[in-house]
Amino acid sequence: MAMERTLITETTPKIGEKVRLEGWISTIRDHGKIVFLDLRDRTGVIQCIGQNLPKVSPESVVEIIGLVKDRPEKLINPKLPTGKIEIEIQELEILSPAAELPFDMGQEELNLELPTLLDYRSLTLRHKKQQAIFKVQAVIIQAFREALLKKDFVEFQAPSIISAVPEGGAEVFKVKYFDYEAYLSQSPQLYKSLLVGIFERVFSVNQIFRAEPSMTTRHLTEVTSLDAEFGFIDSWEDVLKMQEYVVRYIFTEVAKKCQAELKMNNATLPKLGKEIPVLKLREAQEIIFKRTSRDVREEKDLAPEDEREICLWAAEEKGSDLIFVSHFITKKKPFYVYPDPADPTYAFSVDLLGRGVEWSSGGQRLNNYQEILKNVKDWGLKEEDVELYLQSFKYGVPPLGGFALGAERMTMHILGLKNIREASLFPRDMERIDIRLSSTQ
Amino acid sequence: MAMERTLITETTPKIGEKVRLEGWISTIRDHGKIVFLDLRDRTGVIQCIGQNLPKVSPESVVEIIGLVKDRPEKLINPKLPTGKIEIEIQELEILSPAAELPFDMGQEELNLELPTLLDYRSLTLRHKKQQAIFKVQAVIIQAFREALLKKDFVEFQAPSIISAVPEGGAEVFKVKYFDYEAYLSQSPQLYKSLLVGIFERVFSVNQIFRAEPSMTTRHLTEVTSLDAEFGFIDSWEDVLKMQEYVVRYIFTEVAKKCQAELKMNNATLPKLGKEIPVLKLREAQEIIFKRTSRDVREEKDLAPEDEREICLWAAEEKGSDLIFVSHFITKKKPFYVYPDPADPTYAFSVDLLGRGVEWSSGGQRLNNYQEILKNVKDWGLKEEDVELYLQSFKYGVPPLGGFALGAERMTMHILGLKNIREASLFPRDMERIDIRLSSTQ
Repeated sequence: MAMERTLITETTPKIGEKVRLEGWISTIRDHGKIVFLDLRDRTGVIQCIGQNLPKVSPESVVEIIGLVKDRPEKLINPKLPTGKIEIEIQELEILSPAAELPFDMGQEELNLELPTLLDYRSLTLRHKKQQAIFKVQAVIIQAFREALLKKDFVEFQAPSIISAVPEGGAEVFKVKYFDYEAYLSQSPQLYKSLLVGIFERVFSVNQIFRAEPSMTTRHLTEVTSLDAEFGFIDSWEDVLKMQEYVVRYIFTEVAKKCQAELKMNNATLPKLGKEIPVLKLREAQEIIFKRTSRDVREEKDLAPEDEREICLWAAEEKGSDLIFVSHFITKKKPFYVYPDPADPTYAFSVDLLGRGVEWSSGGQRLNNYQEILKNVKDWGLKEEDVELYLQSFKYGVPPLGGFALGAERMTMHILGLKNIREASLFPRDMERIDIRLSSTQ
Repeated sequence: MAMERTLITETTPKIGEKVRLEGWISTIRDHGKIVFLDLRDRTGVIQCIGQNLPKVSPESVVEIIGLVKDRPEKLINPKLPTGKIEIEIQELEILSPAAELPFDMGQEELNLELPTLLDYRSLTLRHKKQQAIFKVQAVIIQAFREALLKKDFVEFQAPSIISAVPEGGAEVFKVKYFDYEAYLSQSPQLYKSLLVGIFERVFSVNQIFRAEPSMTTRHLTEVTSLDAEFGFIDSWEDVLKMQEYVVRYIFTEVAKKCQAELKMNNATLPKLGKEIPVLKLREAQEIIFKRTSRDVREEKDLAPEDEREICLWAAEEKGSDLIFVSHFITKKKPFYVYPDPADPTYAFSVDLLGRGVEWSSGGQRLNNYQEILKNVKDWGLKEEDVELYLQSFKYGVPPLGGFALGAERMTMHILGLKNIREASLFPRDMERIDIRLSSTQ
């Protein structure tokens, strides 16, 4: 039986003990007879010193058996959690050798252009700053779930293959489904709403798909959507409250679990005041006009520069990096949107903006079957394309609403990344599915 | 401001108080002047009594304001958690009326044929036994995550759109991806393995797709896969241990959180002894031959009847409803399978069988780059189709293994369901995507 593995963060209290470590060689400093290695495992990094070692290359996977020793006082590295100790190597075995690296992986910063970062995704993800992005993302997603489980929400698995595209087909991917044509889901909206008729409160973490024929810094063809929907709301504002609770819960979890990862990316969590401010679309446009003299007051939506401006206003005037914008134009929204009875031109639809961009959209939905049926016709849809949805409301669904947060968007803007591709492990766009598609032809 | 909503399970201690309840009408017993309603919300069911009520139909969503009262001793219902009390209705408002039901939803059993169960999915899911299935499924999935988070696994989001099908294309769905052809992922296997080169330990809950041109009771075209993979294993048996830990964790959580749901389905969790027994393929076949005289000793895999037989053996001889079968034929497995050095004809691949069927497959994978490269050629694959995968191993990946559990399979066999379609909220097969596809032509 081999010696039990010691994780790197477990070494510090083991001064004088013999340990077996396993990990990757992050850096090698060869001083002739003596070699210094930085060994990395999932818990951290530690310095190892040896003589007459076998030839080993950076990123190789090794097993090291050695003695845990105090470092001489003047060689203590205060930046490293294991900086007071080092490992005196007794045996080093190469478990998996690494080929020569195409670029230096041992620096604090991985200064690569985005295409190179992605072409070498299996390698570049090993850099601690890249790893940090996806540790934060995992915490965001699990925090989303935990927040909702605490509120009696039931998780469901949203399907990806759908039989019809009730909301128009320009940006939808087609799937050859035996003898039929099927599609990839752009949103689990209809499923989560109809499930409110069953479980009252549901959430889902799922992939959604959009055949976006553009190469912006904020669109991908496949992203992870964090969807929530719930019934028995007393008003559309209940949806805002639930969403604010979820977002605060996520921030608290990230603050608790990701200090090192935030620091590594020079990131701070978005500032929040006592409440996330709420503006109606027309109020937001009025403010933008006053601040910039750009007259957007008749526009039917916020343009990217409007989103940036209203976020600046929220930060400056309300001390909040997040802001809700409500009351978008009913006719520009999907058929299930709930018009404000005070003025049905505008709807109880709500976007959450953060740091200059949209993080989520949501709002109250219609629950009256006759009104939904009328809208299906008015929006030019076919009843059979929304059959299960209509079926749910035909048999009684409470007043309801919900929201969908983009996991990559949140990750990107919490960490201050420049391009959404950096916030996706394996980003897909019109030119790339892991590898560049042009290379496959 | 309206009265705050009281959930049904919160009523019992409120004798004498006025409460506002919201929910669905499960059953109506009209005794002329007096009407008895069973009201259902996400927490339970309660009897409400009223006079001169507005006309209301089963499954309608209502708000009831009334007094919580003790029931007369002889009318106490011991089967109902709220059976000692009832609500004397003061006001009843219909929030969302239900159309006339196509069948009775108020019975203990929903005796419907499968096609009807699915044609009316939005309605039939409201039945408590149907709801129970998906509450159990949600607990299974969250327990899978929790078990692995406790062991330092990092969650990742596996992509669904892939650019190539390295393992052959007969049962793969094609996607029109701009000017290219793409596919739907049959498994996140290559992603989870390459991520071991980065995070050591990863897991994912994701949809997988299989263009299965058959209508068996155990196949769907889209299912939820619970995937785990981890590095620095000392042997293939570490993969079994981790999987056994995860399965036991899931069973414990289901036992803790789903007693009512199990009871409702007359289900008991699979029996487990001290350890899940392990047999090699050839050992299992020998046992089957001895027990049944069916000589399957030269077969390259277990047929469904073999799986049933070896599960019977495990239950009878080892007191275990689960059994691992290992050492399948190397050449019948994918290119990354790890051959047993003692006899490379057989591989360190492992299926977990439960109650007669396969629940998961897994095992140790090759981590030596040269061996993987050789196998890619020997298996007749193209290097560019597994580019990111090869890239990971080129730069060092520890000895690794993992497994994938099917969420629907586990749900089905924990609850003793007859058809996997019952364990999927929105099952997809070659004839159905929510609605019957033949109806769309």
